[in-house]
Amino acid sequence: MAELPESGKRAPVDELLALVTDVFVRCGMRGDDAALLADSLVYADLSGIHSHGVLRVPEYIVKLTTGGVNPVGRPALVRDVGACLVVDGGNSMGQIGMDFATKQVIERAAIHGIAAAGIRGSNHSGAMAYYAQQAVAHGMIGIATTNALPTMAPWGGAERILGINPLGIAIPAGEERPIVFDAAFSGSSHGKIRIYGQKGWTLPEGWALDREGQPTTDPAAAIDGLLMPIGGFKGTALALIMGVLSSMLSGAAYGTELGDMESGPRPGQDGHFVAAIRVDAFEDLAVFKRRVDSAIRQIHDCRPAAGVERIYAPGELEFLRQEEYTAQGIPLNGVTLADLARAAQEVGIDAGGYGWLAG
Amino acid sequence: MAELPESGKRAPVDELLALVTDVFVRCGMRGDDAALLADSLVYADLSGIHSHGVLRVPEYIVKLTTGGVNPVGRPALVRDVGACLVVDGGNSMGQIGMDFATKQVIERAAIHGIAAAGIRGSNHSGAMAYYAQQAVAHGMIGIATTNALPTMAPWGGAERILGINPLGIAIPAGEERPIVFDAAFSGSSHGKIRIYGQKGWTLPEGWALDREGQPTTDPAAAIDGLLMPIGGFKGTALALIMGVLSSMLSGAAYGTELGDMESGPRPGQDGHFVAAIRVDAFEDLAVFKRRVDSAIRQIHDCRPAAGVERIYAPGELEFLRQEEYTAQGIPLNGVTLADLARAAQEVGIDAGGYGWLAG
Repeated sequence: MAELPESGKRAPVDELLALVTDVFVRCGMRGDDAALLADSLVYADLSGIHSHGVLRVPEYIVKLTTGGVNPVGRPALVRDVGACLVVDGGNSMGQIGMDFATKQVIERAAIHGIAAAGIRGSNHSGAMAYYAQQAVAHGMIGIATTNALPTMAPWGGAERILGINPLGIAIPAGEERPIVFDAAFSGSSHGKIRIYGQKGWTLPEGWALDREGQPTTDPAAAIDGLLMPIGGFKGTALALIMGVLSSMLSGAAYGTELGDMESGPRPGQDGHFVAAIRVDAFEDLAVFKRRVDSAIRQIHDCRPAAGVERIYAPGELEFLRQEEYTAQGIPLNGVTLADLARAAQEVGIDAGGYGWLAG
Repeated sequence: MAELPESGKRAPVDELLALVTDVFVRCGMRGDDAALLADSLVYADLSGIHSHGVLRVPEYIVKLTTGGVNPVGRPALVRDVGACLVVDGGNSMGQIGMDFATKQVIERAAIHGIAAAGIRGSNHSGAMAYYAQQAVAHGMIGIATTNALPTMAPWGGAERILGINPLGIAIPAGEERPIVFDAAFSGSSHGKIRIYGQKGWTLPEGWALDREGQPTTDPAAAIDGLLMPIGGFKGTALALIMGVLSSMLSGAAYGTELGDMESGPRPGQDGHFVAAIRVDAFEDLAVFKRRVDSAIRQIHDCRPAAGVERIYAPGELEFLRQEEYTAQGIPLNGVTLADLARAAQEVGIDAGGYGWLAG
């Protein structure tokens, strides 16, 4: 993600987790749910994916207090045929239902070798990698995807009817770090385009279409227009498919049924999809991991293009950031810090103990 | 796919199927296997995906006669844990093992709701949609992917170590045609780039990198260089993941282990992956189909970009071609027709009965 300028301040992970958990508890959530929600946001910041990190706290406070999400909503299995599950999030924060579904799917894949769940009655659930990656410790490949508010047109169109519907996939490795993919089917995001707009920069090609469906490099025309899919019809088709998996297997709202970017999502209507594949249902896990290690090392050893210093496997940069930020604190920009301080105050937290938060 | 100029001739589907089946029988295949192989190629031509159609016949004759593929190779289940299977193709033509695996997976998904198979001991298996689509008639979502010879670098690299590893997904609809996606994770293909080269055209942006990993619009530099992924790191990561699923769950050769574009694939080493998700393990099938119909109609009703006449759902153009070509014959270009005539002669077929084939 493109970043705002750093504030020069770093938040220690444990303190950031404690603060954000406290914020959500004061919005009426149970302690364990609040801790999970905080963990999912801090995980994204730790990975450098700040768009899905604690910058969401003010928006989440609104969801929990006046936005119609149930702070004590409980997810439940509403359909169970062994390897296939439907989870109703009970209008809890999306992370609560998705985490519940992920853990159920991992349990079921341990039995059946493969399992999947559709999730309905849900809300924004953060970074898909947070769920996909949970499968890895169990020797499984994890898959997670979600429906999102429409920001793309089908290829050839000029109307927002498709979400960028991100997909996360995680694959266990041996000595190397796991392969972790998490990306949307658009060339960019509204967040990035807004930052380019603030800086007065021209957008790279391939990011956006204007409201007539023509390519544009003007941030204002892009915000008013459409996100551009990756690979033309390929990106919109994959986004459509992720939307169908995420909403129509569980009975959640699809695309425009969920709402639009202007008025936001209708609470408790979002949907997601998670699946897990147990490697040793197919192949000896140690053999598989050795082969994944080899594929990763082949990427490291690949001759780089001019100007490229090092080639990373999918997810590797995020792991390196997690390691650095865990040791040295998470760099957060000034806007996010100010928003967090305001949020803490709003819910009645004395943030004096968090030195990194002070302006 | 970009097309060579049409010959003006159309091959009746039944005659084309009969001819190509006969060719493969004369290469030593069983009648049923030959008919399946011919059907998979003709299906691609019927869909307008000629790159995976009967233009492959000469290449397949070589595979079957001197290339090391076993014309009477038999696929077998070598691992079976209910919802998870490993199939060894027995060095049969890829279509034989993939079709066997697809039918097994559909049977298993009927029981478990979801099922998957890794396939090894295989060879080039044609268009992924041919397999994914089989699930649709059973009220299932079908998924098929394959390993391919390396033609891409990981993002930032300049060496061919990743295949474009296509993915096929098919989703049942009700009154509308099913959603069928089938595409590789590259912006284009070697076949298309060669056609641009023959015509002396400049390539569109986003198709290719030169051998130093820099974007190029020169077909010669592209052929000597790399296919460009869709969405930068997103396309290479998804290709990597499809390669892992297709080879490392079953013990097939991965990427460079399979061979290279110069010397071709090592026979009997290729791998694939298929999965099926039974919709009514999650949701009432009629409800699901109605919702998919709505999503497709929303695409049809989407305001088009300037210059666009009609917006199609994924796979719809291919269905329209199938309908037209079934009724009126399949248009084949002169090169493909000449190659077919030569192939027929080579295996001792008197092609006099096929008027559309004569030069």
